[in-house]
Amino acid sequence: MTTTPLNRSLEPLGVSIPSKVPTHWYNLAADLPEPVPPHLHPGTREPLGPEDLAPLFPMNLIAQEVATERYIEIPETVREIYGMWRPSPLFRAHRLERALGTPARIYYKYEGVSPVGSHKPNTAVAQAYYNAIEGTTKLTTETGAGQWGASLSFAGALLGLDVEVWQVRSSFDSKPYRRIQMEAYGGICHPSPSDLTEAGRALLKSHPDTTGSLGMAISEAVEVAAQDPNTHYSLGSVLNHVMLHQTVIGQEAMVQLEEAGDAVPDTVFGCAGGGSNLAGLTFPFLGRNLREGTKTRLVACEPSACPSLTQGEYRYDFGDVAGLTPLLKMHTLGKDFVPPAIHAGGLRYHGMSPMVSHAVNLGLMDAIAVDQDDALQAGLIFARAEGIIPAPESTHAVAGAIAHARAVTEPEVIVIGLSGNGQLDLPAYSPYV
Amino acid sequence: MTTTPLNRSLEPLGVSIPSKVPTHWYNLAADLPEPVPPHLHPGTREPLGPEDLAPLFPMNLIAQEVATERYIEIPETVREIYGMWRPSPLFRAHRLERALGTPARIYYKYEGVSPVGSHKPNTAVAQAYYNAIEGTTKLTTETGAGQWGASLSFAGALLGLDVEVWQVRSSFDSKPYRRIQMEAYGGICHPSPSDLTEAGRALLKSHPDTTGSLGMAISEAVEVAAQDPNTHYSLGSVLNHVMLHQTVIGQEAMVQLEEAGDAVPDTVFGCAGGGSNLAGLTFPFLGRNLREGTKTRLVACEPSACPSLTQGEYRYDFGDVAGLTPLLKMHTLGKDFVPPAIHAGGLRYHGMSPMVSHAVNLGLMDAIAVDQDDALQAGLIFARAEGIIPAPESTHAVAGAIAHARAVTEPEVIVIGLSGNGQLDLPAYSPYV
Repeated sequence: MTTTPLNRSLEPLGVSIPSKVPTHWYNLAADLPEPVPPHLHPGTREPLGPEDLAPLFPMNLIAQEVATERYIEIPETVREIYGMWRPSPLFRAHRLERALGTPARIYYKYEGVSPVGSHKPNTAVAQAYYNAIEGTTKLTTETGAGQWGASLSFAGALLGLDVEVWQVRSSFDSKPYRRIQMEAYGGICHPSPSDLTEAGRALLKSHPDTTGSLGMAISEAVEVAAQDPNTHYSLGSVLNHVMLHQTVIGQEAMVQLEEAGDAVPDTVFGCAGGGSNLAGLTFPFLGRNLREGTKTRLVACEPSACPSLTQGEYRYDFGDVAGLTPLLKMHTLGKDFVPPAIHAGGLRYHGMSPMVSHAVNLGLMDAIAVDQDDALQAGLIFARAEGIIPAPESTHAVAGAIAHARAVTEPEVIVIGLSGNGQLDLPAYSPYV
Repeated sequence: MTTTPLNRSLEPLGVSIPSKVPTHWYNLAADLPEPVPPHLHPGTREPLGPEDLAPLFPMNLIAQEVATERYIEIPETVREIYGMWRPSPLFRAHRLERALGTPARIYYKYEGVSPVGSHKPNTAVAQAYYNAIEGTTKLTTETGAGQWGASLSFAGALLGLDVEVWQVRSSFDSKPYRRIQMEAYGGICHPSPSDLTEAGRALLKSHPDTTGSLGMAISEAVEVAAQDPNTHYSLGSVLNHVMLHQTVIGQEAMVQLEEAGDAVPDTVFGCAGGGSNLAGLTFPFLGRNLREGTKTRLVACEPSACPSLTQGEYRYDFGDVAGLTPLLKMHTLGKDFVPPAIHAGGLRYHGMSPMVSHAVNLGLMDAIAVDQDDALQAGLIFARAEGIIPAPESTHAVAGAIAHARAVTEPEVIVIGLSGNGQLDLPAYSPYV
């Protein structure tokens, strides 16, 4: 089955956009004390030029990958689609505060209001838009839990692109709802490793019983995109332009916190897999710390089962298993690391965003590892207090924040990044209810 | 397992409420040309007195069931919780209009932004609140697809009530995500018929292979509530006070349409099972028609597999199978009607809201029946154009609206009630993708 998009509307529709939807993305590169180490060509080990990335990405995104200006304007068509759910709400967690008996004031920034239920459409829409205006007709990608594949399928439907997704086998088998979600948007979804690519066939031969990994799925999606000039590849996390697009989250949160009278929070907790929700929430705060000397502490909360920031090496590594991607300077567990099949499928990645890695390496951001049991128990406490069931990924940030809130003795301001809701990952809670 | 609510906060928290959250519910009874026929005592066939309903409902809700004033103030604590997702968005469906090539301007009012993904929390929160302030400690209820059970569990978690749910067996077995959702909020969920009640045991004896029905599940929940003075029963549709609470939908839509420059739509399509989403959306428009002579046409879209409005009789009937409820004057297929196991579990009810039935009987509202295949195909068209996957229930309204929009030759204004998103009902789309 191929998708038949109903319409391709790259021009703005002229709809009214909520006034608080940001007009620009914020680029942390402008404020960092040292530049982010460049991505390297795997053959020459020289910094990549635009032409090296052109087979996979449109020129606008390649430019954003190395951009150094502080603000980049969001195209009107993208802002219109953002306006469907943005600004996402920032809630004060009064009931959670009471439940914990903490003197802290806790806020959470909730990305689960997007049509697919997570923060991923923030970059999916942008990536689909830049591809569409440059004539790309199809995007390939990988997905873990399925949030990214569903988000890109959503964006493809609205902007007239076919979308083909390789989903990590363990999630493909255990989470059929996500596949149907992608297909409802017109996307095509394969389990990875598949026999549709050389990379997939090689992996199936060497690891016939593998449950897959994001690194394997990336190899397959990249291989297919590289073979067709009208097909490009789209990555849901890790790369600099993805971090950029997600900064609408943190920019909105800063405005909303100021309106709430808590303009400078003490601590911000975000979950970290590839780093995109974390970066989106925290980079605007980090930029302010660097420019204005505020002291907001930023904490990456990663799963202890896949601890790239707290246990990995900071070095150049491939983004995928087959070694098809550029070399990225990042905290990594090694490209061949296959994480256990934890419930937070979106956090099962061997590496970490180079920008996040760089910030942690410079001491600008902290990182902690959270056990899955603690995370999901924290998710239940949150659900019963606040009425929102967090995505398994988000529960890592919730757990970090709850532990902190229980420990503080003075009033302080805590912000939690709630990257999505748990509706399509409810079985993750099954052992705990 | 019993729920252990973390906190019970019946006093307002003092949070800021979006200014467009309605301050009052609208009561259609004030504007009807003839009063809604009263509910009758099944023994005496006399109109019910408050004392007849007291074993099941708190006095505030009993009063609302027979209220005739036009506006009833929404308690501040309820409005604060509404403010988590209300006002729900009203979107102009530009891309759907293009896809259909219609001259109509199509809007949709989207209730899927609530924490459980449907309109049901609008009344769940109100019912839990009125019960809690009168000292109820536990609520029992029935659920079909699970949206109502999840909504009441959500409300119980926030307002400190235990919640016990009987879910129609066919949905309980085919939709495990909903049960986990209820449990994540601390609710308890049983398949119905169960061996926990006399009504359930009798049904299992007479119909050992039954897949259940809402009417059966109501009998079980009512029986349990009637046995304990601290336990009350909560109904997610049908009753007058439920219709009342849902009118926040239509009131918001009227304000939003006026802001969009289309204050008086030509046609409003809502899906109809028990009638609550339909009534919530359409009653404020109907009231304006009656008071001001506007001519907005209101269309109830019900499944052809369970066609109470289009095929049922308008007469007094029980709300449940066992005959434990009062007699309600309504369009009914007969209390023993067991609808086929269609995907729109929320529309599988033998009767119809007495207020909606009365309005249809007076010629104030139209009704059509929609085939499941047409409904879900319309849902896919909508998803790929607008980026939101409708709940199977909502697709009936979408199908009615799409057929109408394709037929019109002049610009007119159409409003669709999108009662929820389809995230937890994605398997319904499986045969169509």
